[in-house]
Amino acid sequence: MKVLIIDKMHESIQPLLSAIGVQVDYQPEIDRNKIIETISAYNGIIVRSKTNIDAEILQHADKLQFVARAGAGVDNVDLEVLNKRNIILLNAPEGNRDALAEHCIGILLTLLNRIHLSDQEVRAGKWDREGNRGVELMGKTVGLLGYGYMGEAFAKRLQAFGCKIIAFDQEKKGFGNEYVKEVSFEDIQKETQVLSLHIPLNKENRALANKKWLSDFKQLEYIVNTSRGEVLVLEDLVEMLKSGVIKGAALDVLENEKINKLHGLQQQVFEELIKLPQVVLTPHVAGWTHESYKKINEILAEKIQNLYFKK
Amino acid sequence: MKVLIIDKMHESIQPLLSAIGVQVDYQPEIDRNKIIETISAYNGIIVRSKTNIDAEILQHADKLQFVARAGAGVDNVDLEVLNKRNIILLNAPEGNRDALAEHCIGILLTLLNRIHLSDQEVRAGKWDREGNRGVELMGKTVGLLGYGYMGEAFAKRLQAFGCKIIAFDQEKKGFGNEYVKEVSFEDIQKETQVLSLHIPLNKENRALANKKWLSDFKQLEYIVNTSRGEVLVLEDLVEMLKSGVIKGAALDVLENEKINKLHGLQQQVFEELIKLPQVVLTPHVAGWTHESYKKINEILAEKIQNLYFKK
Repeated sequence: MKVLIIDKMHESIQPLLSAIGVQVDYQPEIDRNKIIETISAYNGIIVRSKTNIDAEILQHADKLQFVARAGAGVDNVDLEVLNKRNIILLNAPEGNRDALAEHCIGILLTLLNRIHLSDQEVRAGKWDREGNRGVELMGKTVGLLGYGYMGEAFAKRLQAFGCKIIAFDQEKKGFGNEYVKEVSFEDIQKETQVLSLHIPLNKENRALANKKWLSDFKQLEYIVNTSRGEVLVLEDLVEMLKSGVIKGAALDVLENEKINKLHGLQQQVFEELIKLPQVVLTPHVAGWTHESYKKINEILAEKIQNLYFKK
Repeated sequence: MKVLIIDKMHESIQPLLSAIGVQVDYQPEIDRNKIIETISAYNGIIVRSKTNIDAEILQHADKLQFVARAGAGVDNVDLEVLNKRNIILLNAPEGNRDALAEHCIGILLTLLNRIHLSDQEVRAGKWDREGNRGVELMGKTVGLLGYGYMGEAFAKRLQAFGCKIIAFDQEKKGFGNEYVKEVSFEDIQKETQVLSLHIPLNKENRALANKKWLSDFKQLEYIVNTSRGEVLVLEDLVEMLKSGVIKGAALDVLENEKINKLHGLQQQVFEELIKLPQVVLTPHVAGWTHESYKKINEILAEKIQNLYFKK
């Protein structure tokens, strides 16, 4: 079995795959044209997010048996073509869910306790205690939209904070437990004070959280987004933050993460966003730890082994 | 019963105490001389931290039955004199332990995930994913030195993060449970990777964590201090951070928190400290939330009621 790797991955991937008998071609610098030119020689391809694995690429992939995403989200892969062609899709949410959950808790508590602001103040010689009182997570109702690997890992940590956890997942039922109450989407809108998005990016979810949608939440105070930036309309969020309708946001993802190449309205909205103190911003690194970098490889190697090399 | 309040407290304190029959004299702006002049008229005094309730003040407090600290630490009260005079000491750790524990988790995860750094970067137009990989708390051994209200509240949250929790408390035995392993101080030194200080400031603990003491930890990587700045020698910590012996520190408290009035070595050490990216600094606000501001009052009122007004 020959596998092409088209993105930079932790160096453990080669020995892991070689050990189970996979022939690895590690081409982290390969461009789209070269992929199209050479993909017909491979049984598998491993990608991060640089390249869209779309109909055009797949059309040349005569022998392709699987596409593996070194991460959780699969929005850069054309699932329809994969289905049609019976090409298997692998991903590795088990490898970065713990990293993501820790980051989620981290940016939420940073927001609530003004840690990003007071750290800057202290460094600038300002020691303001009264102005930096926090808000407690304890007692709040946290609503999870989406309860896959990520929502579940976040909920697992939240359990210990004495908050009420409610969750809705369009694709999944029967996941409620002692700590997480499975509710309808209507109840999410009615009760949520802290909203955390754990939904995939697809046609239905793109720009889902717009002003109208957010306005239907009755008690919304804070938003955490570690899923995909495109599900949340930044212009609407900034407007609602500025007017105080929403008290704060912790965002690991943005609609357009090429923040140096924005223009027009996007640039204007970004400029307003970065002026807001009631926002915590991180560069799409929830799920990115030194540990998850390796764990993702281990999960993918294990899944490939289970599929093709199990005795 | 007449009670003097000598610090600013949430406005709920007056109705809470009046309701149980206490006559409240709220003097948040009172100075030391005036306290000495008037304290003989009061049965109780409620303080935050502005004033040391020392032998000199207590000597004038003829009718004093209790000193109440609107917080947890009681290092600004002369416990020896209180003991001798049979004056009761009240404090309210039950009111701010949850706030403190959330802040502890928050600054630790901020440190491990570089949230304070990447938030600044994104605001400055830099979107660096690879440079902002975090380090996972999961799997690490967290050592708690001190297991009072604060250590316990922190441990309660830590349980959900899949780390090994070990704790030692000089004053307390038999507190171990399913999640927290009670160990000897030697084991704390041998196993701790993340050290969190939850000890009171007293003669023995002042400057306890110096270079020699810290060097005896075999696997120490990160330090969290939300107790009192004076227990940790900042000069030694900064040196060990700069040399890389310790990887990072999350500090809510400093040896001298009057950061605008430092001089000499203290000023020099502070200037080095604030240049370090592997440090998170907050201005003594662990335990300071809008919620704890009120909860502390409720706890104190309840304790005063239980002591003096219980049928």
